Amino acid sequence: MIDPTAMTAAEINRGVETGEYDPVEIVDAYLDRITAVDPSLESFVIVTADEARAEAVVHREAVRSGVPGGPLRGVPFAIKDLYDAAGHPTRSGSLASSEVPATEDAPTVSALRDAGAILIGKTTTHEYAYGVTTPPTKNPWQLDRVPGGSSGGSGAAVAARLAPIAMGTDTGGSIRIPAALCGVTGIKATYGRVSKRGVTVLSWTLDHAGPLTTTVADAARTLGVLAGHDSSDPYSAAVAVPDFGAMLDRGVDGLRLGISDTYFCDRLEPGVAAAFENAVRELERAGAIIVPVAFTGVELCPDIVDVVASVEAASFHRSRATERPDLFGPDVVDALRAGNLHSGVAYVDAQRARSVVTAGMNAMFGTVDVLLSPTIAGTAPLLDSTRTVLGDNEIGVLNSLNALTVPANVTGMPALTVPAGFDDAGLPVGLQIMTPPFQEALAFAVGQAFQSRTDFATAVPDTAYTLTGELL
Amino acid sequence: MIDPTAMTAAEINRGVETGEYDPVEIVDAYLDRITAVDPSLESFVIVTADEARAEAVVHREAVRSGVPGGPLRGVPFAIKDLYDAAGHPTRSGSLASSEVPATEDAPTVSALRDAGAILIGKTTTHEYAYGVTTPPTKNPWQLDRVPGGSSGGSGAAVAARLAPIAMGTDTGGSIRIPAALCGVTGIKATYGRVSKRGVTVLSWTLDHAGPLTTTVADAARTLGVLAGHDSSDPYSAAVAVPDFGAMLDRGVDGLRLGISDTYFCDRLEPGVAAAFENAVRELERAGAIIVPVAFTGVELCPDIVDVVASVEAASFHRSRATERPDLFGPDVVDALRAGNLHSGVAYVDAQRARSVVTAGMNAMFGTVDVLLSPTIAGTAPLLDSTRTVLGDNEIGVLNSLNALTVPANVTGMPALTVPAGFDDAGLPVGLQIMTPPFQEALAFAVGQAFQSRTDFATAVPDTAYTLTGELL
Repeated sequence: MIDPTAMTAAEINRGVETGEYDPVEIVDAYLDRITAVDPSLESFVIVTADEARAEAVVHREAVRSGVPGGPLRGVPFAIKDLYDAAGHPTRSGSLASSEVPATEDAPTVSALRDAGAILIGKTTTHEYAYGVTTPPTKNPWQLDRVPGGSSGGSGAAVAARLAPIAMGTDTGGSIRIPAALCGVTGIKATYGRVSKRGVTVLSWTLDHAGPLTTTVADAARTLGVLAGHDSSDPYSAAVAVPDFGAMLDRGVDGLRLGISDTYFCDRLEPGVAAAFENAVRELERAGAIIVPVAFTGVELCPDIVDVVASVEAASFHRSRATERPDLFGPDVVDALRAGNLHSGVAYVDAQRARSVVTAGMNAMFGTVDVLLSPTIAGTAPLLDSTRTVLGDNEIGVLNSLNALTVPANVTGMPALTVPAGFDDAGLPVGLQIMTPPFQEALAFAVGQAFQSRTDFATAVPDTAYTLTGELL
Repeated sequence: MIDPTAMTAAEINRGVETGEYDPVEIVDAYLDRITAVDPSLESFVIVTADEARAEAVVHREAVRSGVPGGPLRGVPFAIKDLYDAAGHPTRSGSLASSEVPATEDAPTVSALRDAGAILIGKTTTHEYAYGVTTPPTKNPWQLDRVPGGSSGGSGAAVAARLAPIAMGTDTGGSIRIPAALCGVTGIKATYGRVSKRGVTVLSWTLDHAGPLTTTVADAARTLGVLAGHDSSDPYSAAVAVPDFGAMLDRGVDGLRLGISDTYFCDRLEPGVAAAFENAVRELERAGAIIVPVAFTGVELCPDIVDVVASVEAASFHRSRATERPDLFGPDVVDALRAGNLHSGVAYVDAQRARSVVTAGMNAMFGTVDVLLSPTIAGTAPLLDSTRTVLGDNEIGVLNSLNALTVPANVTGMPALTVPAGFDDAGLPVGLQIMTPPFQEALAFAVGQAFQSRTDFATAVPDTAYTLTGELL
């Protein structure tokens, strides 16, 4: 058996189903790599080694007995510590959380288990998913850089091949930002596509759950397991789930891919601009038609997310924040305070402005099939940076990181990020692929066409971190 | 031809289709009655006599030529002055409204016209639908009493037989309150069942559009014309529309009708309590099974509606209210001011509390088919009353009138009101019939069973108002 940590979920599952690979050996390979590498990355908050091995044994026996398995049988996965897993507390990256273990799995976690995937641990999150840096986790490409967030642990873990699949959540970009900064694939599906029950709330009307993976094919396979109506989640959409893999190899021939000079492309770091330009040319060579697009309202998105998320978070956390504000980090305390200061009218205005943005995006999607952009205007900032320079402006790290991801939260439209190369410093760049609602399969087709013509998704950071011992 | 103003919509339509009645004579009969009676009631803000006669001529010719017609061909209807009708300003009962004529009909108005109904005028509304008294309109049963509101003009007009159908809107009870206080039938269908485009907003997440009629059969027929998905209304539900008349004569045999001693029945005026008790016994004699029910959360409804409606109204009216507050009535100015004072967190809390109420109602509907209650705890207050006594408490008129109607707005569930008799003063009492979402046909079946066994729906107020000349 080749090194399982170098495989995709699809490759692991194929080997397990043929009997070539032993699920126990697969799990052990990942656990060993976590032991070796994660002391430097700090991407896991708990490793469920014993449970994972026990589950792997059950799957091994099932394969041997000829019991039919699901599409992820034998594939290890991790979950952001915002997801409930039975028997473990959901700490959500905060001292303010209860230490009482969850009594049942989130439906997404059970769905993955039912598909045969094996939970190997829980990953770090920025406190209550409210931030984009995820301390203490480091970026596996350069340990003095942030992994992004709030699903920074899942981004770092997948990038360092500590898990082939890790679940994240995305309120303003929290799946796509760490995926892009760490050089992996991440999908925020349409709002309501994936159940959020059993996942700690940041902002009910903006939150999404979804996976980070190494390849688009794995993302499509995993979303197929996760997607579907959950009557116990009031935000779940009762919309039929297609076969996300059906169009995977359709290519981009004749597809109209929109590019917006304004908002999405006007403040890029040079390395991001170059990588994005190369990606667009690659898709054009593959047969896509590149179409300049313009639309209205998208510039409202950052302010909309600021107001909506802070007010909803302040509502959700009120009792905790009132009783023990000392248990929260200063950035989250500030954000909750801001949320308490917004008026009801400001909140309603922000919610209503979403329809303006959505109308603008819908009109744009009348002329193209897909919207392409960089996922983030820059690459991973330094761990201790709080400001960054973009064009002529110095702005907060958070603002620089989520500007291009928030439109998909405001509109609820699907957005996939795939690795699109590196800047001169060797830091990953992400390519964002947006589609109209419930057309994730189209985003996967474009992402797969790109990955089939490039090798960015197979690049793995050098994890011989003992050489940089001062960071251990 | 017998007097058309004594007929139901179904009777008018039947006579028009057979050629027995001339649509022009029908329209003229209603216009004549408006001329005679409405100076006392002040229920119309504009009578579209010439347009109505012209349309009636077209329908007359179509019938004579054998052109197939819709289910309301030849039936006059009125609309609350919150609905757009092409060529007329939508004043919404306020001096703050634009005088510019609407360029197109609201989809509900076009649907009624497409079904062959003939617009004869626009009725009064409490200013911007934000109130339950609807000055200057009087209650046709006693001219010193309020007609209810905010669709007070439609309630008074249908009760006085000035129109067989009149459209209303319902944010906290504004269809059902005037229907009950004026002794007619009114249906607030499930949230999203009827398009609200082209209807002035009070509160996006609580507003409903729907008709007032003299009978349940007419309400079912009219809702059949109005219901359906409107892709141009973001709040419209993409849910199939059944034949609302299919179950109309099913009766109530074996149906489980829930009665709640708490909240819905614990603060009734004696005349309402007696009429309600009689209605319940009547339905029991018709074969229904009466089941005591209890549920949680419903007591939150008045506060939820206060917060949600005032914040959303303050958002909607901001520019008007900022620039020309002097153009608003003092009650609406106060309400908008209150809306501006609520925090975003209070608004989110109120919206989230709706799911608590809905869960309680859903659990209750697990044990019964229908919830019965009085529509209002009392009968029509005096025009100049601002406080009323209920039990041991003196409370505001508004609070006394919408307490039992708001749960259907908070939950979005259907609620039908039918006339259920009179109190000792001769003022009408309403019976409210609530069902789970999208089960309006069941509410109609219960209402029809009641109307087929009672004659309250055929009672018409004495409109010889010249005898009370001081009110003219």
